[in-house]
Amino acid sequence: MSDQHFPARLADVGAQVEATLERLLDAQPLPGEVARPQRLLAAMRYAALNGGKRLRPFLFIESARLFGVEGAGVLRAACAVEMVHCYSLVHDDLPAMDDDDLRRGKPTAHKAFDEATAILAGDGLLTFAFDVMADAATHPDPRIRCDLALGLARASGLGGMAGGQQLDLDAEHAAAPLDHAAIAQLQSMKTGALLRFSAEGGAIFADASDSDRNALADYGRALGAAFQIADDILDAEGDEAAMGKRVAKDAGRNKGTLVGILGLEAARSLRDELAEEAVNALARFGDKADVLIAAARFTASRAS
Amino acid sequence: MSDQHFPARLADVGAQVEATLERLLDAQPLPGEVARPQRLLAAMRYAALNGGKRLRPFLFIESARLFGVEGAGVLRAACAVEMVHCYSLVHDDLPAMDDDDLRRGKPTAHKAFDEATAILAGDGLLTFAFDVMADAATHPDPRIRCDLALGLARASGLGGMAGGQQLDLDAEHAAAPLDHAAIAQLQSMKTGALLRFSAEGGAIFADASDSDRNALADYGRALGAAFQIADDILDAEGDEAAMGKRVAKDAGRNKGTLVGILGLEAARSLRDELAEEAVNALARFGDKADVLIAAARFTASRAS
Repeated sequence: MSDQHFPARLADVGAQVEATLERLLDAQPLPGEVARPQRLLAAMRYAALNGGKRLRPFLFIESARLFGVEGAGVLRAACAVEMVHCYSLVHDDLPAMDDDDLRRGKPTAHKAFDEATAILAGDGLLTFAFDVMADAATHPDPRIRCDLALGLARASGLGGMAGGQQLDLDAEHAAAPLDHAAIAQLQSMKTGALLRFSAEGGAIFADASDSDRNALADYGRALGAAFQIADDILDAEGDEAAMGKRVAKDAGRNKGTLVGILGLEAARSLRDELAEEAVNALARFGDKADVLIAAARFTASRAS
Repeated sequence: MSDQHFPARLADVGAQVEATLERLLDAQPLPGEVARPQRLLAAMRYAALNGGKRLRPFLFIESARLFGVEGAGVLRAACAVEMVHCYSLVHDDLPAMDDDDLRRGKPTAHKAFDEATAILAGDGLLTFAFDVMADAATHPDPRIRCDLALGLARASGLGGMAGGQQLDLDAEHAAAPLDHAAIAQLQSMKTGALLRFSAEGGAIFADASDSDRNALADYGRALGAAFQIADDILDAEGDEAAMGKRVAKDAGRNKGTLVGILGLEAARSLRDELAEEAVNALARFGDKADVLIAAARFTASRAS
């Protein structure tokens, strides 16, 4: 796949993800559910059906496709990953956390609803992610469903995304700014772990060999690191209109970024090196990995 | 088991649950976790190692024991249920929700730490619950692990506990107080669903027949309803010192309870009827169900 065709592919998969999320977040209760309260469902839908790029489910889906696996089950599992991402945005935006009023130019969930409903909508999306992973409709083999749920939990919780957000909060109150290693660890948890799992998860779904699975985890890890630096570069360069959220906020709050430590020039080089590291992790798959290769380059280039 | 021996049994199982939670919430990262940030781990431990009665894990463990199944795996699964309960207390206590400063006479998590850390500690406990359920260390059969994770998710999320909390918030802002049916539905979601799953979960763990599993679900459903009415009676009768939290709060905020609709006398009768309904659901198990029978009567009598 040429890099020019990549945005269309991303948009196409994103539309399938949106449609699947739409069906999952339906008003009809599932077996074992008492009822689906209207306001909470509306808040969960607001948070999940948000027009995002759907990079995480895209990586999951394209990683599974690398092994010839596609279809409704993969889409469901990919949506579970996206629900975890969406829950994290809702909770991170809360007044007690980053206190953001806007996301992608729209009011954040606690502004569109209220704070209590936003907390519950995040909780509901996180819980529903594991519902979807554990459900036989996602994959016929329960061993694989368990591996997916376990991998998602490890990437998202105390030792992954939630832990990374805590380190980020800690850094705001720390006496000294974080050094390069501490920032790299924070980012590998806060944004890296879920991106890594997104790529690895597709291989788990496809029951790929351990070495293939590890290659995709390595790809996801490098892509995740590149993604975060690209994001920090965007933040440093960006303007409010283009981003739809307040900028230079992280710098203002003394949150360490690698851009702050390395400067823009060196940060761009590191980002591009990491994107190439991601590409190199896929060498074993040859041309079949073209889409994932384009994804790594796209992730880096969005901040060029 | 005579009712006099029940408190000792509850305390004994509670101590095993406490010890298992202590081991699970260890500083050592698990495979797939990057690191366990100290402050978040401390907040999760504060919320989980709280000296509660551990009624939910007790029901899970005694339900599995009814089928001759016990050991380390059951304890882990029971702790996953307790983690979900503990996360819900942390989030319900937040300023945007019930705004409670004390729980069991101790500062709530957001008072002992801060609001952002409390939100993340709840998120971390919820996520870790599914980690534990999906982990092969909990049960050798992945089909059963998936059934447990799915049942836990359905009981906890949009269509269960989180949804019930939303209905409770909605009721505060409603023009008219809730009627009997609406309160019963709210409570069947907010507290009932997880208690029902606690009893049913032990049967799932033990791979019991569908009819045995359904009997335990019926038991848990009736016990859960009795529990909530007993709690509302305690709230109406209680005093601040005995409860360790502010009382008559629910009444003051116009939250509907069945005590408010029926009066104390009729509420006590309904509570006792529900406890007997729980007991009757266990008829098929004969004397083997003595502990669970005592649990139903204990649940009701704590508010006598």
